Amino acid sequence: MDIAALRSANPDHWMKATAIRALTLDAVAAANSGHSGMPMGMADVATVLFENHLKFDAANPDWPDRDRFILSAGHGSMLLYSLLHLTGYQDMTLEDLRNFRQWGAKTAGHPEYGHAEGIETTTGPLGQGIANSVGFAIAEEALRARFGKKLMDHHTYVIAGDGCLMEGVSQEAISLAGRQGLGKLILLWDNNNITIDGTVDLADRTDQVKRFRASGWHVQEIDGHDPAAIDAALTEAKRTRKPSMIACKTHIALGHAAQDTSKGHGALTDADQLKAAKDAYGWPHGPFDVPSDVKSAWEAIGKRGAADYADWQARLVEASAQRQAEIERIFARNVPSKLSARIKALKKQVSEEAPKVATRKSSEMVLEVINPIMPETIGGSADLSGSNNTRSGDMTVFDEGNRKGRYIHYGIREHGMAAAMNGMVLHGGIRPYGGTFMCFTDYARPSMRLAALMKIPTVFVMTHDSIGLGEDGPTHQPIEHLAISRATPNTWVFRPCDTVETAEAWELALNSKETPSVLSLTRQGLPTLRREHKAKNLTAQGAYVLADAEGKRQAILLATGSEVAIAMAARDILQETGIGTRVVSMPCWELFEEQDESYRRRVLPAGPVRVAVEAAIRFGWDRWLYGERGKREKGEFVGMHDFGASAPAEVLYEQFGITAEAVAEKVKALL
Amino acid sequence: MDIAALRSANPDHWMKATAIRALTLDAVAAANSGHSGMPMGMADVATVLFENHLKFDAANPDWPDRDRFILSAGHGSMLLYSLLHLTGYQDMTLEDLRNFRQWGAKTAGHPEYGHAEGIETTTGPLGQGIANSVGFAIAEEALRARFGKKLMDHHTYVIAGDGCLMEGVSQEAISLAGRQGLGKLILLWDNNNITIDGTVDLADRTDQVKRFRASGWHVQEIDGHDPAAIDAALTEAKRTRKPSMIACKTHIALGHAAQDTSKGHGALTDADQLKAAKDAYGWPHGPFDVPSDVKSAWEAIGKRGAADYADWQARLVEASAQRQAEIERIFARNVPSKLSARIKALKKQVSEEAPKVATRKSSEMVLEVINPIMPETIGGSADLSGSNNTRSGDMTVFDEGNRKGRYIHYGIREHGMAAAMNGMVLHGGIRPYGGTFMCFTDYARPSMRLAALMKIPTVFVMTHDSIGLGEDGPTHQPIEHLAISRATPNTWVFRPCDTVETAEAWELALNSKETPSVLSLTRQGLPTLRREHKAKNLTAQGAYVLADAEGKRQAILLATGSEVAIAMAARDILQETGIGTRVVSMPCWELFEEQDESYRRRVLPAGPVRVAVEAAIRFGWDRWLYGERGKREKGEFVGMHDFGASAPAEVLYEQFGITAEAVAEKVKALL
Repeated sequence: MDIAALRSANPDHWMKATAIRALTLDAVAAANSGHSGMPMGMADVATVLFENHLKFDAANPDWPDRDRFILSAGHGSMLLYSLLHLTGYQDMTLEDLRNFRQWGAKTAGHPEYGHAEGIETTTGPLGQGIANSVGFAIAEEALRARFGKKLMDHHTYVIAGDGCLMEGVSQEAISLAGRQGLGKLILLWDNNNITIDGTVDLADRTDQVKRFRASGWHVQEIDGHDPAAIDAALTEAKRTRKPSMIACKTHIALGHAAQDTSKGHGALTDADQLKAAKDAYGWPHGPFDVPSDVKSAWEAIGKRGAADYADWQARLVEASAQRQAEIERIFARNVPSKLSARIKALKKQVSEEAPKVATRKSSEMVLEVINPIMPETIGGSADLSGSNNTRSGDMTVFDEGNRKGRYIHYGIREHGMAAAMNGMVLHGGIRPYGGTFMCFTDYARPSMRLAALMKIPTVFVMTHDSIGLGEDGPTHQPIEHLAISRATPNTWVFRPCDTVETAEAWELALNSKETPSVLSLTRQGLPTLRREHKAKNLTAQGAYVLADAEGKRQAILLATGSEVAIAMAARDILQETGIGTRVVSMPCWELFEEQDESYRRRVLPAGPVRVAVEAAIRFGWDRWLYGERGKREKGEFVGMHDFGASAPAEVLYEQFGITAEAVAEKVKALL
Repeated sequence: MDIAALRSANPDHWMKATAIRALTLDAVAAANSGHSGMPMGMADVATVLFENHLKFDAANPDWPDRDRFILSAGHGSMLLYSLLHLTGYQDMTLEDLRNFRQWGAKTAGHPEYGHAEGIETTTGPLGQGIANSVGFAIAEEALRARFGKKLMDHHTYVIAGDGCLMEGVSQEAISLAGRQGLGKLILLWDNNNITIDGTVDLADRTDQVKRFRASGWHVQEIDGHDPAAIDAALTEAKRTRKPSMIACKTHIALGHAAQDTSKGHGALTDADQLKAAKDAYGWPHGPFDVPSDVKSAWEAIGKRGAADYADWQARLVEASAQRQAEIERIFARNVPSKLSARIKALKKQVSEEAPKVATRKSSEMVLEVINPIMPETIGGSADLSGSNNTRSGDMTVFDEGNRKGRYIHYGIREHGMAAAMNGMVLHGGIRPYGGTFMCFTDYARPSMRLAALMKIPTVFVMTHDSIGLGEDGPTHQPIEHLAISRATPNTWVFRPCDTVETAEAWELALNSKETPSVLSLTRQGLPTLRREHKAKNLTAQGAYVLADAEGKRQAILLATGSEVAIAMAARDILQETGIGTRVVSMPCWELFEEQDESYRRRVLPAGPVRVAVEAAIRFGWDRWLYGERGKREKGEFVGMHDFGASAPAEVLYEQFGITAEAVAEKVKALL
């Protein structure tokens, strides 16, 4: 590249963009770690985007109607940090940039949601940002339909690299966005032709332009170092009614000795080369030194949206008090005040009527209560609507022609669905939930982890949660998936035993502000075990005594979900032979772990033998089979020891020995 | 559809195809469960494929040079079972079809590899078959280059549905196949426009023809019920040098009342409708009744390849004895006899030289020994070659111009890589391994599970296996991923502590015939702890005493991987204060679990307090912190309790309290 020509063609632009490049070089050099090349390559695109297009106000980073900027190529985090600092975000100081990638810094190696304002989502695992952005754009469409253009009318911009486009989840996102005609979604592809291993060509020759067009996107191709071309393309992208991809031909590590090489992808720390690059840039300033005229120009950009923000505030004030309160409520992730009473009423009703239904059906019964009073929910399924029971009767289908629809046909895209749901939560104003078979936790897993890491309350409705799925066989029978979700920090895994616990689990999931929930629900029918109505949400304690021993307490049976009924039947057998048996339902291990030790000891006292029963592997159960520290009980487990099989559910339970008789036998053997 | 016209146009073809339809209807009706519509829609395509193109011999299903037929749309399993039965596979009887989806039957709900000959891979989780097929085709190319066209020259055919094409992994597979120019891969798309929720249009409007072309595929569009068109397209697909996609426009549940509806996707069991369909077909026969002329015609197809097989056998006999033995060896998944001695020599050398290296580097040292003597290995990485250390010095890059290359740049496609590796193992003759960061187990997970379920020895090289990854931060730091893999049945999770254990782990992984391996390897340097050479593979026992207590044994420290060195340092501290401390290295829990109880008790005797240390969450460790059944020791854990953070590795270990001092303190507190 002829750097001198770039400098002289647009000197003002050049200096602003070069501030990003210089800060990136300095921060990576200080950390001796990081990715220099991407921010250096995309500095021009980002500068034009922030200067002329992005609707934002650095002083009001939480403004609901701001444009969203998502850095899907999260390894280029210094691009984002530089932009936030330069435009004057209060909590992104020069000191923060100096502490890039250090303990306690906001400026983590990859952008971490919650670390600083302006970081709209956590990225780094490639493809996630693109897939989140589909959710952001859906949220904007839904809220615009609900509140009108005066209050909600903004764009979602995402920068993605070759890695993002190679990840499969990007295809799910692109095709879903195309199908939904998300016209306010604009993707800027950093087409630099370089990955870590070398040129993109080593692994991929996909014609991305044709690929995006095949999914209904509007596509432009530009020189990503030409400010006028960037500006014109963004203008055109905003005009078109399709989702828009701008292929920005760029040079990774522009102006550095490592330009256009895979070395440029990584940490450029050589002092001489760094100086040479800065010399070429016409940037004689020391580390982290941004001259005041350049900083002022950037800060003016950061204030450019102040008037937009003020106008929006004025429009908000014009709206009804009710509407103002509603917007405040949904963006604060508060549930409606009446939710609690409605859930209690449902619990009371079902504890009296005692239906025998699958908990996936229970979940639908709860959704019939929730959805009419929570207009912020958006439901959906990865092409298993009838099986996941995720669509309540009041929900119409979200579509180009019906943006008030609150049900999304995500297609056979579990991963894209999970990532899009995360995007909706992050956008704010929406409480999404989506369903698939629990076994396909595997497909959704990268986004489920990020929900936990980002501390956002996405709700994953996972039905057909054991061998109870039956004939579809081992590929579709989750065995280890409860363990997988339980092993993930900051995740509530609910496995309710009946409709009452299902209602309680939903109440907790919706009241959660910082923890995602996995609802593990059955295909097969289950009896109502909570026959005595209790207003209190017992599931909130994680585990509780469902039925206590009659006579001397000799055994405690621990169970979740569909196996609680088996434990209750085992208790009948044992009590008949005079063995006093307590049954503890454990719908949520994580919440039980959060209780104080005295409650845990009351539920699981020392002394009696313990048998746990769950139609899944034992992994993790030892935590509960043995007592609190320093105490020990004899414990045994009834459950799965290997993958499942294809047969009717009842046959499988029998063949795998997950029966009341087997549980009773284990207790007798331990005594 | 005008069924009468179809019948009369090609009566012989019609009856053969209708045998598939009838058997499908009968089996699903008998099971009262399953998917009727797909086999009914694709029966014509499958019939022409088997009759005129597929190189196979029902009497010799394991013939290495057969064409491979993969049913990616695995829910249509009755298509495959019908074909295997009709063409005369010995182990697919009418009784097996009658037992569709029943306990113990070969005919599981979805095709399960190993249940019957002719099932080339397990499918059902959508997209997996497509992604496997890329591995099959790579294996064929590699073996053709190695042994010549006389011994290896066949096609891979895959039938995929709309669901397969919506799953993100399909994009990874399609783009990798396009990049690699896998001309012998032919994909038949069941373009029936129906998914479970309704028409495809509900969720997707992707132009699949353009999408495949964008990735370099040859594409044709045909009427999937026109035998001549199917035949011509297959002929053309075999001719072209690109991977080939044939879009077959079909009618799901052809001829049934549920034709072209989502109901047709599921189980069609209504007796009257079933009879009406059979009437329309001109098929007056009872359940599972295939007239002898039709069965004979199918059996002739099953014998069509007998001559091809005999010719191949003759060519094999002409080859050198060495070549014959080599083919037999690699298809039997046997390692070369000299592997054991070479591994021992390396162990001896490194135990003497005691290098301080990361175990990812140790792994590379082992690969430098393995790859030159195991020409069947194919290595690769998902764009992290330099970080995963997966490429040994002798490996050139596998590419259109170099099919003898044994290193694959998979691109940023962890899922596609894992699925392709499974395909290579399933094809036979190849021992693939591939690397990524351990955190991206999340992306590869659906295929890692299937490797375990299929009982195939794929090797997953997972580096940067803890917070020791450092500055990249929590998105890239595995915390729960050891638990995830350990929770999966039939998976060996190796976490070696030094180069010696790494060599032992590789030896076990390569000797495995039925269990996949996860190698959990560090980014950071580790000392050599196995300084005294032992010829015996100690890792094979799963856990062993690395250093015993001096004096009275008061404490046992359990550790894996990078934390074994911390445990050893803690032992030093404790021994200095007179606390006799044993250190147990546990490189593979699963193999330790397989040892007899007496060995486990010798390694972990009752009495001493136990402290486990691992830079991951505790989940699962309780199994080892408490003694064998009926015994209990006081146990504690030093490790992670939440997600990681971005900072240099040493800082993270210190901040998260994973230090020798912390371990020693825990022991003292317990005593």
